[in-house]
Amino acid sequence: MPRLADHEERRRSITGATRRVIARGGLDAATFQSVAAEAGVSVRSVQYYFGSKREFLLATHRAVVEDSGTRLHRALAELGPAAGPRDIVRAVLVGLLPLDEPSRQNAIILGIFHAATLTGPHLEAADTASTPNYIVEAVAAQLRRLRGPDADEAVIRADAEVTLLAVAGLAQGMLTDTGMASRATELVDHLLHRVLPGVGQCSALQGGGEEPPGRPPGLSVP
Amino acid sequence: MPRLADHEERRRSITGATRRVIARGGLDAATFQSVAAEAGVSVRSVQYYFGSKREFLLATHRAVVEDSGTRLHRALAELGPAAGPRDIVRAVLVGLLPLDEPSRQNAIILGIFHAATLTGPHLEAADTASTPNYIVEAVAAQLRRLRGPDADEAVIRADAEVTLLAVAGLAQGMLTDTGMASRATELVDHLLHRVLPGVGQCSALQGGGEEPPGRPPGLSVP
Repeated sequence: MPRLADHEERRRSITGATRRVIARGGLDAATFQSVAAEAGVSVRSVQYYFGSKREFLLATHRAVVEDSGTRLHRALAELGPAAGPRDIVRAVLVGLLPLDEPSRQNAIILGIFHAATLTGPHLEAADTASTPNYIVEAVAAQLRRLRGPDADEAVIRADAEVTLLAVAGLAQGMLTDTGMASRATELVDHLLHRVLPGVGQCSALQGGGEEPPGRPPGLSVP
Repeated sequence: MPRLADHEERRRSITGATRRVIARGGLDAATFQSVAAEAGVSVRSVQYYFGSKREFLLATHRAVVEDSGTRLHRALAELGPAAGPRDIVRAVLVGLLPLDEPSRQNAIILGIFHAATLTGPHLEAADTASTPNYIVEAVAAQLRRLRGPDADEAVIRADAEVTLLAVAGLAQGMLTDTGMASRATELVDHLLHRVLPGVGQCSALQGGGEEPPGRPPGLSVP
C-alpha cells in the first residue's frame, strides 16, 4: 500500500495501543516501552512516529475525540434526513454516553486526560478542551430549528451548554456509579424535557415548540 | 491538649499535606515520604496514622468531601432561615463551584481521584462517590417546598440529579476552561431557570411556583 497510507496506519495502530494501555493502567502506564509492546512495534518506531511522550498522548487524545465524533455521525446518519430537532439532540446526547465498551474506554481516557491536565507535567489545560465546540453548535442548531428565527441566541447557547455539561457529568458519573449508568438515558430524556419542553407544553422561551419542516441533521467535525 | 484531639489534629495536618501534594503533582506524587515532608512530620508517623497509601488517600478524599460540606453549610447559614427554595438551591449549586482557591483545590483533587478510580490500583469506584446523596436530597427538599405536596417525587429526584450533574460537569470544566469559569454563575442561573421556572412562569410540573412560608434550610452531612 502507498507510503502515506502506511504511515497513517502505523500512527493509528500506535495511538490505539496507547488508548488500551491508558485505559488499563492510567497515563503513567503509557511509556515508549509499554506502548511499543502493546502495538507490537519497536520502541524506535514509536519514537519515529511520535517524538515525545507528550506528542503521543496528544495524538491519542485527538484519536479519542475523533472516534467520538465518528460515532455521533453514525448515530445521526441512522436517524435519517427527516429527523426532528428533538430526535437529533437526543441522538447527540445519548451518543456522548459510555453505553458500550468502546465508548466506555473513550470516556475513561477523557476522564484520565482531564485529570492529567490539572497537574501536568505532560499535558496542560489547553490540550484537552471540554466538550468540543462543534457539539455545542450541533445542539444549538437544533434549538434554533425548534424555536424559530426570533429565539434569543444567548438563551439557545446557554441551553446547549448546560445540557452538554449535564451529559459530561453523567458520562463520567456512569463510569463509577452503576446505579446512575442504569438510569442514564432516562436522565437524558428528563434533561431534554427540561431544555426542550415538548409540543403543547408551555415555555417562556419558545413558541409552543412547533417544528419547521425537517432539515437533514447538521454536524460537521472540524 | 487531650490525646484524642491531638490525634485528630495530626491526622488533619497529614491529610491537609496530602491534598497540597496531590493538587501540585497528582496522585502518584503522594508517597509516605512526600506527604511526611509536606506535613513536617516523620515518615514513621504518617505510617502510624495511616497504615497504607490507600488509607491516607481515602482519608484525604473524605477530608475534601467534608470540607466541601462545611462550605455548603456556611453558605446556607449566611442565607438565614427565611431564605426561599430558589435561593437555597442556588447557594448549594454555587457553593459546589471552584470559585476560590480552596474550593478550586478541592475540585482538582476530586477530579484526580475520579480518574484514579477508573484505573486503580489504589482506589476503586466505590471509594469515590459522585455527588454525595445528601446534596441531591438537599436540592430535592427545596423542590418539594417549591412544588408542594402533590408534586411527582420521581420528577423531583430527576430534576435534582440532572441539575447536580450539570454543576459537576461545570465544576470540572471550569478548571480547564477559563471562558467557562467566567460564565459559571450565569450558567447556574440559566440551569435554575430551566429546572425551577420562576413565579408566574408556566411549568407543567408546578402550580405557578408559589412558595410555602420559609423553613430553615435543611442540609445534613451524613
